[in-house]
Amino acid sequence: MVMKRQLIGFALFSGMLAGTTTGFAQSGNVVKYHASMGDVKYVYGVAEPVARLKSGDVLETNTVDAFGNAIQKPGDPLSLVKGDNPLTGPFYIEGAQPGDTLAVKILDIQVDGNQGVGAFAPGFGALNETNYTPMLHPPLPEKIWLYPIDHASNTATFKALDSNFSVKIPLHPFFGCIGVAPAGGEARSSIVPAEFGGNMDSPEVSVGNTLYLPVNVPGALLYMGDGHAAMGDGEVAGTAIEVPLRTRLQINVLKGQKINWPRFENDDTIMAVGAYRPLDDALRIAFTELVRWIHHDYGLSELDTYELLSKVARIHLNEMVDPNYVVVALVEKKYLPPKKK
Amino acid sequence: MVMKRQLIGFALFSGMLAGTTTGFAQSGNVVKYHASMGDVKYVYGVAEPVARLKSGDVLETNTVDAFGNAIQKPGDPLSLVKGDNPLTGPFYIEGAQPGDTLAVKILDIQVDGNQGVGAFAPGFGALNETNYTPMLHPPLPEKIWLYPIDHASNTATFKALDSNFSVKIPLHPFFGCIGVAPAGGEARSSIVPAEFGGNMDSPEVSVGNTLYLPVNVPGALLYMGDGHAAMGDGEVAGTAIEVPLRTRLQINVLKGQKINWPRFENDDTIMAVGAYRPLDDALRIAFTELVRWIHHDYGLSELDTYELLSKVARIHLNEMVDPNYVVVALVEKKYLPPKKK
Amino acid sequence: MVMKRQLIGFALFSGMLAGTTTGFAQSGNVVKYHASMGDVKYVYGVAEPVARLKSGDVLETNTVDAFGNAIQKPGDPLSLVKGDNPLTGPFYIEGAQPGDTLAVKILDIQVDGNQGVGAFAPGFGALNETNYTPMLHPPLPEKIWLYPIDHASNTATFKALDSNFSVKIPLHPFFGCIGVAPAGGEARSSIVPAEFGGNMDSPEVSVGNTLYLPVNVPGALLYMGDGHAAMGDGEVAGTAIEVPLRTRLQINVLKGQKINWPRFENDDTIMAVGAYRPLDDALRIAFTELVRWIHHDYGLSELDTYELLSKVARIHLNEMVDPNYVVVALVEKKYLPPKKK
Amino acid sequence: MVMKRQLIGFALFSGMLAGTTTGFAQSGNVVKYHASMGDVKYVYGVAEPVARLKSGDVLETNTVDAFGNAIQKPGDPLSLVKGDNPLTGPFYIEGAQPGDTLAVKILDIQVDGNQGVGAFAPGFGALNETNYTPMLHPPLPEKIWLYPIDHASNTATFKALDSNFSVKIPLHPFFGCIGVAPAGGEARSSIVPAEFGGNMDSPEVSVGNTLYLPVNVPGALLYMGDGHAAMGDGEVAGTAIEVPLRTRLQINVLKGQKINWPRFENDDTIMAVGAYRPLDDALRIAFTELVRWIHHDYGLSELDTYELLSKVARIHLNEMVDPNYVVVALVEKKYLPPKKK
Repeated sequence: MVMKRQLIGFALFSGMLAGTTTGFAQSGNVVKYHASMGDVKYVYGVAEPVARLKSGDVLETNTVDAFGNAIQKPGDPLSLVKGDNPLTGPFYIEGAQPGDTLAVKILDIQVDGNQGVGAFAPGFGALNETNYTPMLHPPLPEKIWLYPIDHASNTATFKALDSNFSVKIPLHPFFGCIGVAPAGGEARSSIVPAEFGGNMDSPEVSVGNTLYLPVNVPGALLYMGDGHAAMGDGEVAGTAIEVPLRTRLQINVLKGQKINWPRFENDDTIMAVGAYRPLDDALRIAFTELVRWIHHDYGLSELDTYELLSKVARIHLNEMVDPNYVVVALVEKKYLPPKKK
Repeated sequence: MVMKRQLIGFALFSGMLAGTTTGFAQSGNVVKYHASMGDVKYVYGVAEPVARLKSGDVLETNTVDAFGNAIQKPGDPLSLVKGDNPLTGPFYIEGAQPGDTLAVKILDIQVDGNQGVGAFAPGFGALNETNYTPMLHPPLPEKIWLYPIDHASNTATFKALDSNFSVKIPLHPFFGCIGVAPAGGEARSSIVPAEFGGNMDSPEVSVGNTLYLPVNVPGALLYMGDGHAAMGDGEVAGTAIEVPLRTRLQINVLKGQKINWPRFENDDTIMAVGAYRPLDDALRIAFTELVRWIHHDYGLSELDTYELLSKVARIHLNEMVDPNYVVVALVEKKYLPPKKK
Repeated sequence: MVMKRQLIGFALFSGMLAGTTTGFAQSGNVVKYHASMGDVKYVYGVAEPVARLKSGDVLETNTVDAFGNAIQKPGDPLSLVKGDNPLTGPFYIEGAQPGDTLAVKILDIQVDGNQGVGAFAPGFGALNETNYTPMLHPPLPEKIWLYPIDHASNTATFKALDSNFSVKIPLHPFFGCIGVAPAGGEARSSIVPAEFGGNMDSPEVSVGNTLYLPVNVPGALLYMGDGHAAMGDGEVAGTAIEVPLRTRLQINVLKGQKINWPRFENDDTIMAVGAYRPLDDALRIAFTELVRWIHHDYGLSELDTYELLSKVARIHLNEMVDPNYVVVALVEKKYLPPKKK
Repeated sequence: MVMKRQLIGFALFSGMLAGTTTGFAQSGNVVKYHASMGDVKYVYGVAEPVARLKSGDVLETNTVDAFGNAIQKPGDPLSLVKGDNPLTGPFYIEGAQPGDTLAVKILDIQVDGNQGVGAFAPGFGALNETNYTPMLHPPLPEKIWLYPIDHASNTATFKALDSNFSVKIPLHPFFGCIGVAPAGGEARSSIVPAEFGGNMDSPEVSVGNTLYLPVNVPGALLYMGDGHAAMGDGEVAGTAIEVPLRTRLQINVLKGQKINWPRFENDDTIMAVGAYRPLDDALRIAFTELVRWIHHDYGLSELDTYELLSKVARIHLNEMVDPNYVVVALVEKKYLPPKKK
């Protein structure tokens, strides 16, 4: 676990960052950190930081895939995998204190390789018995699909195992895992999404969006991993197109702004995350957070907001396969009053 | 309950119907039926038909709004409402027999009036205690919002009750209720969505889509109502912009084709409906139906389909406020093999 | 559907009925009705009554088993079964009107035969995929267990299919199905439990208890069936020891007393039923009903009741295998204030 | 955090331990540890042990109440509480290694004081909106009930706040919290029940029962707290009668015996725990564990077991108010074949 932090100087990202709605500083150091299997983590919790950033800095780093890059060719079994969702991090953000919010602006995400992996692992999936919805059926068989990545066309190719059908799938790279150390002294597995973010499997963690996370410990301790080249809603069979990623993220600390659950925002839309079980409760969390966000920041009464959302909200069901399920409730800003000063 | 069926002759709808992917006959009689509060129904079940159609006929009819058009001006209380979701119908489709499928192609839907209604009715909604998620909290207060409809701009206007904020919402008219008589001698309330369709609150019941419903009784006995001018995903506060509608639907009987749950299709997409509680199970129903549809009609193996959907499926969570919740699982046809002959 | 009602005269059941806590009339006619497969029903709904009773009358009748008595010997397949849960009834109770409550006091239940049946039917059960929790697993195999009944020792004998283990199980006979015509013009399958009672699979429907059901239509239209000789909590594999039953029930109409969900009562205990999905909501229904029952009849405030139940309530989880799940929340009267007059 | 371990010598507990079904050594050292608020913990995880035991040793210790003994008299607000469920421990059990099972035999539990506390804390309870089932209702008001304990009659007294009703409740003291360090490097809040035990709120943690917990880290690291003098099923308002406890527990390590979820056993009964959300899945966990336990230890086939449990199993729904819900599935040994050697 070597500290590979390198200061690159006060690089200016004015083009990239100009006009952001979240009022970030428009410059910052670039901190580079290269992750390898030697220093990944498997829990979100308090651990020795791999690098430190100041608010406004840009982090350039990478992640291994959800299998620790262990599946490389046909026939490689899941038993080669050392642990699910190895995480890059933690990154210590100076000045971040419990009660603050961490804003992570996704500047760039690139698939870091030429192949993705999909796997059906017995006990994991929305349409089969699992550890938390166990049944007496024999498990479905383990299966692995390899997805060649074509960077020129920005696609991955699905190839059926039981027939010769294949089809190209456009890439939409994002982090399945991104989160901070949990509150209350908890440490949570890298397969869990919850209040601290984590394994949200949210395609919203992609270029153009800013992710807000509650800060629970000094330095926030940011982790990321579980790169996805593309994923269907619900991630129903248990995996996306799993890939290593390279990324550039700008990190800001919003002092004294407290949130309870992760949020996303871009120029057009605000998005609230609910991560729990059953989906009914994940949805209730996401929507009560969205109602309160709008009430607090945009000034509509709670009942007017409730009514308005019943007419114009959108729901993105991210996944129903992890220990908690993730629902994103969103609304376009064009339907809201101007933001309060 | 007067039979108002009128045969209009062999009107040709070649322009409208040419090129459909579902192979409908390209002509058919037009059957017109005008519904009023004197002959609405409040259950999906066996009842005297209001009109009869042949397979291939086009139905022109209308629906009153979810409140029976009882809420017209500020101050009108919900106590004026005689019953929820009054239904137009049933329509008897000649030749439809249990084990067949009814295909309802939505040719046209128009808002039939200049105002829509949104209501917060205590005990109804995703973020408050209800009859089926009861709690000890005092109920939230009854509230009604009126939405002026502007046909020129194709918008409805939300006006906040607790501030002077207003905003225009684009119209996307669809039937919240459309279904047939249930199987097994059941009769179900017009507020229930289930295997027979019903109160699915699916924005998919709109122009360009074909709805497939299982036929459970001779003649199928088709009903529709609960017009929506626009609705947010989840319909979280319990209502959409509730409006009367005028519609034109082409009805076909697919002999000997049996489905278990409603489905939608258009030129680009196939969509399977799950309607149950909790959302977890609604999602499982929708996706197992989608897997089996693809396996049966497009020839991919079930596990290949499961994997592919985990990468490219989309989920539309229609509503989480009715006695059953509705999830639509969908996939674009471009990701599938050619349909089997 | 022949009316087999026979008046037996003003038989006096003073011994049996004296001292009941529910204030029933202490005498009544005996109405006898013998059910056979020729006149069973498969839905709770409005149908021609098979007999009529006055409030206070005693009904002597019988039920076929959940398979219509079709499974009699090893090797009989489930395909012999015409329909699940054939119902005896309906019985028209004179004077019962919507808004009243029907009180059904269980005077006697006897197993009407020498053998019970247990079956594992694919798609039915708490630990395997079902119609409403579907999965991609192949179904578990159909299996049938026959249970010899020994009336002398009041036991049934389980005999393992895959080994030579056998064990005696004490009989606790009760009706899995008992209910009235639903509200709002609905008709519900005999496999469904809901507000109207129905397939509650409640061992509480046994001698010594009084069942209260809401009256939704004139005459109430009482049905019963699905006799169980004994059942485990949850009825997890989908069946109890299924048997025909003979019974004696005293029926009373409680005029102007309205309940929303079924209730049970005996000398010592009050019990409220919740029947919905998921179990979380079934429990919420049962407990909010119990809180309101205690508040209304025994005068404790709602929050005092909530607190007290958190210390002394009991929960009986009846079943998690039917289209709705059933939870009974109960409290011993010794923990309550005296009932209000 | 002072080590207060005291060896008492080879005290013999022959009377207490004779005839146990779980084959414990009938003697062991007594290790005494006195806990106070100065050294409680708020997470189950890896921490410095407060004492060390050998397999077979008896632990004599105590716990503060769920509020850290902060609520002592009428008017004391919940804001006095420093943290929920302060835990005594951890206790390091020598020789316990991941893959082993820890057996905790409850020899004695006594209420350690003269008063218990019940509290309604907004956001906590089965019949009101909570952090994980949030709604837009204003929270119910904070309320506290004090329960005098009468050691002579072994009762606590409920006193209504809104009337002058009071009633005595028999004591059944048990630990709401008992668990070990979780697997995979996780650390979990003392309000969470899960695979490692924890806040199960199981009245089964009482004298006469043995609790089995999976060992996940060297030494197992056993914690306990959240003493309850009595509790209703479901703990619906969020608290039991919360008390400090004194206890005597015998701890044994079952080498090489791996379990996935907590279990209980006494002379008559085996009991499997499921702890998750929704209740449906908690029940599935408990019952699949019970089926596999019986299949593995008693030799019945899985389907025979499934069938038998459907006839004779019992369910104890412990709580539906913590971050996970807890269901215990149980069966009397008299219904099972002899245990395999």
